[in-house]
Amino acid sequence: MAQALIGDSEFDRDTAVLRRGPHEPGVYDVELSAGWTIIAAVNGGYLLALLGRALGDALPHPDPFTISAHYLTPSAPGRAVIRTELVRTGRTLSTGQASLFQYDGNGAEIERIRVLASYGDLDSLPDDVRTSAKPPAIPPPEHCVGPADGPVPDVGGSSAIMDRLMLKLDPATVGWAVGAPSGKGEMRGWFGLADGRDADPLSLLLAVDGLPPTSFELGLKGWTPTVELTTHIRCRPAPGPLRVAITTRNLAGGFLEEDAEVWDSADRLVAQSRQLARAPRG
Amino acid sequence: MAQALIGDSEFDRDTAVLRRGPHEPGVYDVELSAGWTIIAAVNGGYLLALLGRALGDALPHPDPFTISAHYLTPSAPGRAVIRTELVRTGRTLSTGQASLFQYDGNGAEIERIRVLASYGDLDSLPDDVRTSAKPPAIPPPEHCVGPADGPVPDVGGSSAIMDRLMLKLDPATVGWAVGAPSGKGEMRGWFGLADGRDADPLSLLLAVDGLPPTSFELGLKGWTPTVELTTHIRCRPAPGPLRVAITTRNLAGGFLEEDAEVWDSADRLVAQSRQLARAPRG
Repeated sequence: MAQALIGDSEFDRDTAVLRRGPHEPGVYDVELSAGWTIIAAVNGGYLLALLGRALGDALPHPDPFTISAHYLTPSAPGRAVIRTELVRTGRTLSTGQASLFQYDGNGAEIERIRVLASYGDLDSLPDDVRTSAKPPAIPPPEHCVGPADGPVPDVGGSSAIMDRLMLKLDPATVGWAVGAPSGKGEMRGWFGLADGRDADPLSLLLAVDGLPPTSFELGLKGWTPTVELTTHIRCRPAPGPLRVAITTRNLAGGFLEEDAEVWDSADRLVAQSRQLARAPRG
Repeated sequence: MAQALIGDSEFDRDTAVLRRGPHEPGVYDVELSAGWTIIAAVNGGYLLALLGRALGDALPHPDPFTISAHYLTPSAPGRAVIRTELVRTGRTLSTGQASLFQYDGNGAEIERIRVLASYGDLDSLPDDVRTSAKPPAIPPPEHCVGPADGPVPDVGGSSAIMDRLMLKLDPATVGWAVGAPSGKGEMRGWFGLADGRDADPLSLLLAVDGLPPTSFELGLKGWTPTVELTTHIRCRPAPGPLRVAITTRNLAGGFLEEDAEVWDSADRLVAQSRQLARAPRG
């Protein structure tokens, strides 16, 4: 099967946004695909990518630079609407706001996520790079572990998203899958899309929320619902696979933060994110 | 002079918000004090604290848990208005939005900052703490450096905020002040308020933006205007001085991120923030 291309892939089809029309500028109809669920929940990064695509259409600048999302109520597969607002236009950055709504039994809109974002043009950035961070040390993909490589952990339901992703985890971060969590709040691996589509700024929004939670390696079971997720997109990713490294250092009071870094094949730190999530019960 | 108390201090007076009245719920008149400027700019953390106080009054829950601010246009000392909106009320968390406006020559409102935040009740959090992060290694305050301890760096204008703060920087991070920047993107020190008022969740919003920029230690001169700042408040701080440690690891393409950690006297990691800022020219 030929590698899918940016613009013509599962990810692009499932994050498509349809302008509602000139009488309702800034409003987009979307379909939340059941193909990007983890257990019953629509993946937060997939939702962020949908909102990111709508804002990229609505704003004068094309690329998310910094995007902050507050997750209000759980989304379900099915139809939704995104309403955007231009907050400010600048020369190099514009700021916008967007909300994703679904419908209750009476057809009333229920807000699922609200986002505030500043957009720019990644291709216009100067290429001086003084990044002092180093790429994560992850074994090559053939020495990493994907769902086909071992027992499928019983996470209690279907995880359709696993069919959409090419995920290979560092063996040092999969102890949880065999009942031996490392005790370190870390999760690392190679990340890509199953149909081979290269990464782009929008798929980076998916990548930052695409790995299992670090809490699994702290011996906690159960999901960690995201309260808020802020992502910085710093560079257009080069073609080829991405490396994602996630850490948590402050599990306390029923919440944890997770910091994600995404590195491309040219060893650029292309995205950084931090989320605040609720800790699971046990 | 007696130590100022939470609720009766310079910080409280200068971050006071006045409800406009029952006919305009969620609207607050405020005065941006000239006392919190750094060079010509009103400090971003001071502005965040004002917005945080307004939201704490407007929302059903009292304390910011996660607050994301996009800075749109520079603020100036003088009058301003904050308009808040309740986005969602939940049992343990509520989400709100707020904007701070000032006035142009015709009296029209110009938006300065827009914020999205989720609030909760810090005092209701369980006290299980599994924080793996460690407090920064900073020499005791008497071995750290404040403005009175050495040559005042020529930063090109008055910095009234320095009279409001008790700031003692780790000597390892003040090479910039004597023309010998370390080359490491780090800034650390002891942080408090000059009148002795203890920290609280709102003053933590000031603390995360209260130190000189890490870019000074990378040999860059000039200010680093904040584009976006997201802060997590994880714990009510204990009385006593705070330690703040800031790092940057991704100076690239004309932008840099800065991660701040705030530790209280009980060695709790009480706040974490990340901002995206524009790099200075030189």
